[in-house]
Amino acid sequence: MRDLRICFVGDSYINGTGDERCLGWTGRLCERRFSWDYRLSFYDLGIRGETTAEVRARWKAECEARFPETADNRVVVQFGINDIGVVTGEGRQIEEDETVEEAEAFLKEVSDLYPVLWVGLPPANEACSPMKPSEGLEVSFSQDAATALNERFKTCAEKLNVPYFDLQAPLLANRDYMSSLTRGDRMHCDGTGYAMIANLVNNWEAWDGWFSE
Amino acid sequence: MRDLRICFVGDSYINGTGDERCLGWTGRLCERRFSWDYRLSFYDLGIRGETTAEVRARWKAECEARFPETADNRVVVQFGINDIGVVTGEGRQIEEDETVEEAEAFLKEVSDLYPVLWVGLPPANEACSPMKPSEGLEVSFSQDAATALNERFKTCAEKLNVPYFDLQAPLLANRDYMSSLTRGDRMHCDGTGYAMIANLVNNWEAWDGWFSE
Repeated sequence: MRDLRICFVGDSYINGTGDERCLGWTGRLCERRFSWDYRLSFYDLGIRGETTAEVRARWKAECEARFPETADNRVVVQFGINDIGVVTGEGRQIEEDETVEEAEAFLKEVSDLYPVLWVGLPPANEACSPMKPSEGLEVSFSQDAATALNERFKTCAEKLNVPYFDLQAPLLANRDYMSSLTRGDRMHCDGTGYAMIANLVNNWEAWDGWFSE
Repeated sequence: MRDLRICFVGDSYINGTGDERCLGWTGRLCERRFSWDYRLSFYDLGIRGETTAEVRARWKAECEARFPETADNRVVVQFGINDIGVVTGEGRQIEEDETVEEAEAFLKEVSDLYPVLWVGLPPANEACSPMKPSEGLEVSFSQDAATALNERFKTCAEKLNVPYFDLQAPLLANRDYMSSLTRGDRMHCDGTGYAMIANLVNNWEAWDGWFSE
């Protein structure tokens, strides 16, 4: 029997922060595909506030601890939104070139070891910027920066031959999603927003392919 | 505003393995208490198959990565069921004395740094033993061993002054819970079982106290 294990690695959007249903998009996605027949186990390894470099630094130890050698082990990643955050008085957290360099090295590391899918960063929450994600921290997000990083990520994914899902285009065009960013914790989308992301990824042929093999 | 972050650390019962709703007991528990007012963020750090020693070895690095210094950081732990597993041809995974020694050291480490709650191990799934959690592994679980370990854990928690929730007594007496162990993946309870655990912990005064402070 197939013993499918999936690690979702990334930042607060992977974690599902601010979702009143406590599932996030990853939980909703797995719920749709849940089956005891292939024994789906999944691990949510999203950490709030992490940049690409921080996600990259821990992914391997955390995934290896969760993947038995005998199982069908796979990884889904999403990151980058924190890199573009501009901290009041300090500037942008990580410059675009450095993010792309880290992203490429990260995806290379993962894809050398496991099947991997890359979900792009979500739209910036300009409407609620600047926001205070934790005590003593004030951050602003710009959509121009998110759009630019998403384009660079697409190019990088193509180069590495890793499937990339562009969340920017469909979510920016979705008024309900954009308004979900202004509800909830006013930093992330609320549950309705996470459900929209789950729907998009659920219909993605690269994800679907993992279940029809 | 209170910035409450909770790490749930342990084995497959923390992970919610086999739950068709993809929430486990920890997700259901957080859903009940979810509020944007105290900005609840939670991290599920359960790993399938881990023994007490394995959980202890990684808890600190994984929690520290998730806890900003400025937040209200707390930990809930559950472990021990894999220690009592008897691997066909190899014997019990960890002897009782060694488990208790590891558990005491682990809880001491956590409680020195964070407020912590200890949820006891669940009943053994004798009805489905021996089971094959992954390729090449066959394991059996005995209720006598679970009962004995639970009693030792209670004594240990009292000594350390850590709140301990005894799951054995209420779940063994609950026919619906015991039958939930024979459905699902035939290793763990199914979603109805996880919901019962969430209900019990939700009504526990030590957990409730975290939200009335």
